[in-house]
Amino acid sequence: KINGDRLWDSLMDMAKIGPGVAGGNNRQTLTDEDAEGRALFQKWCEAAGMTMGVDKMGTMFMTRPGEDPDALPVYVGSHLDTQPTGGKYDGVLGVLGALELVRTLNDLGVKTKHPIVVTNWANEEGARFSPPMLASGVFAGVHSLDYAYGRQDLEGDTYGEELKRIDWVGDEEVGARKMHAYYELHIEQGPILEAENKQIGVVTHCQGLWWLEFTLTGTAAHTGSTPMNMRTNAGLAMAKILEMVEVVAMENQPNAVGGVGQMTFSPNSRNVLPGTVVFTVDIRTPDQTKLDAMRAKIEAEAAKICDGLGVGCSVEAVGHFDPVTFAPELVANVRNAAERLGYSHMDLVSGAGHDACWAAKVAPATMVMCPCVDGLSHNEAEDISKDWASASTDVLLHAVLETAEI
Amino acid sequence: KINGDRLWDSLMDMAKIGPGVAGGNNRQTLTDEDAEGRALFQKWCEAAGMTMGVDKMGTMFMTRPGEDPDALPVYVGSHLDTQPTGGKYDGVLGVLGALELVRTLNDLGVKTKHPIVVTNWANEEGARFSPPMLASGVFAGVHSLDYAYGRQDLEGDTYGEELKRIDWVGDEEVGARKMHAYYELHIEQGPILEAENKQIGVVTHCQGLWWLEFTLTGTAAHTGSTPMNMRTNAGLAMAKILEMVEVVAMENQPNAVGGVGQMTFSPNSRNVLPGTVVFTVDIRTPDQTKLDAMRAKIEAEAAKICDGLGVGCSVEAVGHFDPVTFAPELVANVRNAAERLGYSHMDLVSGAGHDACWAAKVAPATMVMCPCVDGLSHNEAEDISKDWASASTDVLLHAVLETAEI
Ligand SMILES: NC(=O)NCCC(=O)O
Ligand SMILES: NC(=O)NCCC(=O)O
Repeated sequence: KINGDRLWDSLMDMAKIGPGVAGGNNRQTLTDEDAEGRALFQKWCEAAGMTMGVDKMGTMFMTRPGEDPDALPVYVGSHLDTQPTGGKYDGVLGVLGALELVRTLNDLGVKTKHPIVVTNWANEEGARFSPPMLASGVFAGVHSLDYAYGRQDLEGDTYGEELKRIDWVGDEEVGARKMHAYYELHIEQGPILEAENKQIGVVTHCQGLWWLEFTLTGTAAHTGSTPMNMRTNAGLAMAKILEMVEVVAMENQPNAVGGVGQMTFSPNSRNVLPGTVVFTVDIRTPDQTKLDAMRAKIEAEAAKICDGLGVGCSVEAVGHFDPVTFAPELVANVRNAAERLGYSHMDLVSGAGHDACWAAKVAPATMVMCPCVDGLSHNEAEDISKDWASASTDVLLHAVLETAEI
Repeated sequence: KINGDRLWDSLMDMAKIGPGVAGGNNRQTLTDEDAEGRALFQKWCEAAGMTMGVDKMGTMFMTRPGEDPDALPVYVGSHLDTQPTGGKYDGVLGVLGALELVRTLNDLGVKTKHPIVVTNWANEEGARFSPPMLASGVFAGVHSLDYAYGRQDLEGDTYGEELKRIDWVGDEEVGARKMHAYYELHIEQGPILEAENKQIGVVTHCQGLWWLEFTLTGTAAHTGSTPMNMRTNAGLAMAKILEMVEVVAMENQPNAVGGVGQMTFSPNSRNVLPGTVVFTVDIRTPDQTKLDAMRAKIEAEAAKICDGLGVGCSVEAVGHFDPVTFAPELVANVRNAAERLGYSHMDLVSGAGHDACWAAKVAPATMVMCPCVDGLSHNEAEDISKDWASASTDVLLHAVLETAEI
């Protein structure tokens, strides 16, 4: 078993970097706070005897050597970047849980055939630079490095510039590493494990996603002196589209979601009807056919709504992944570990996207999930118990050992 | 008749200060650009023999003396501040038209019994600091000076601090001046004059307004892993409220409008349902009873919508004025002037609020309106013709002379 106190202390120490405004964290990717978090993680890993490699996306690979010089490493990781108003555990538990796993092996003097590489993927959240899971996406060959470097935040700064600015451009080609397997521990970010009173989620699938960025073009005009029948109101079209997205998601129950998180009105002045409204629709379901049908329906209905109002409508897909089926033998390792350790568990579909979804393209992969209070995540109030953190890291340890071979 | 070329040249010179991004202007109140615009206007007025007074709100009063030492001045003015993406004529035509009127009287050696005071009211737009018509509102006793000084822009800077920063705090008590009458020339900012093919709008009334700032409180949560039935979705409540505002405005046709110009999602991240959505509803009608009924209905319906979704809802009135009836004798002066000069004209209700609305509380007041292309305003593409500008300034001159007495 891992050392739950040590794990918790590390979680709390990391949470001191980039504190939020309400008890959580704001350690967005490639900010000064991200750099500070990376340095602390590097220090801890080196103290645990690991050596660092960094790739051109800034992903950190910390290696604990194996005994067989020909054996490919088992990768175990997640991300240290957070949402602007994020929690202390989303991603961080997976990275520091992997570190704790190595610390435990060190304590016990356990050697493995395969090296173990604790991984901190860059820009998982996609909050500052869309799409999410950007570095693992480049690693898996989904995106090109140039595409990733050119991504811009809301200020117009690019990923490439900002990675250079915080001085974390590595020398490894992205994706050059070969993986024997990939494991990721993560908080559920949903309410199911807690509702079902289970300690461990055995993640069999991940739902697919489309992020559809709508740009609606109306006519910026005076709110007072523009008669109702002479408006080209992009704000009204947006409202109708939001309601329609909700309807489409409800029509596709169960196991489908749809919502809007990002919204910009221009010029955003109280007495000016917006000339432009930009917002992102996020739709997800584990069912590939449903996912594509939802996208098609939303785009068609939005076009109708905008036509009816004379509003211009353009849509760009700014994020996408297909539903993922995780490697059955690794999933079995997680399930067996939970069973053996006597932790209550259930099979689960991941509601959120994870680096594991991209890793699954290039290696056998799976995930372990831990409950979180009220299913709340992407919120500073995100919370887990020390017991949940320990139990899920125990399961991670045992599943990884199955693959890394003692 | 006034000198149309000179007026147009002054308009174009002022438009060079605080250029926009698409041919218009961004000369928001109390910015460096506003200070530059004020300095140019001061220079022009002093060159025309006027002397300056400035009050504690930063409003500029430029006096052309009258012949009767006991006669109260006739005030003629508007505003030089603009929207963030504003036009070259909104407000500016009224101030520079008043200046042109004085230049014309100087050219012709015409003296008046009453002094004429060309006025540049501070913060008419209310784009940077709500509410609009802030300085004229303090002048008319509607707001206290402390209230005005405490108004904050989106960055949290206050009116008081910013007025000091640009060094335009005057020594006059606000509202200490007594007015014989107040005239204001303004572009229509609506489509009616152009549609009716009239050169001059004789403004008989101004519609009343409420600005209702809604703060909706949902639960910031992951867009992917939060099931539809577990959401407290402030964005969805916002969408339903926007549609409802449209319905209420349509129910109150003709002569009523409702819309939303300003919108903020927090944390505004693509994969986070918004924890908070803040937006401002703008409703207007010339009918006092209707105005209050619309407000009551919108607040009641919004409360129902939010209740149904479990979303918290609070409403603050951040701007208000009652419908205004302008002084019949001044309105007649405008109508007679247009008639005498042979300009086509019609009676009009102002769709937008103007400093004249507050001035009407403390003096007989009215307005002259000039058409604008496609009724477009609060848009950098706002446009008027030189002929329209000249004709409306001619009417202003003749109406003012009626009151200022030759
Ligand atoms: N786990 C997580 O929040 N990843 C970000 C991508 C997503 O929105 O699913
Ligand atoms: N004229 C004008 O746009 N005034 C600002 C106040 C309003 O929104 O009516």
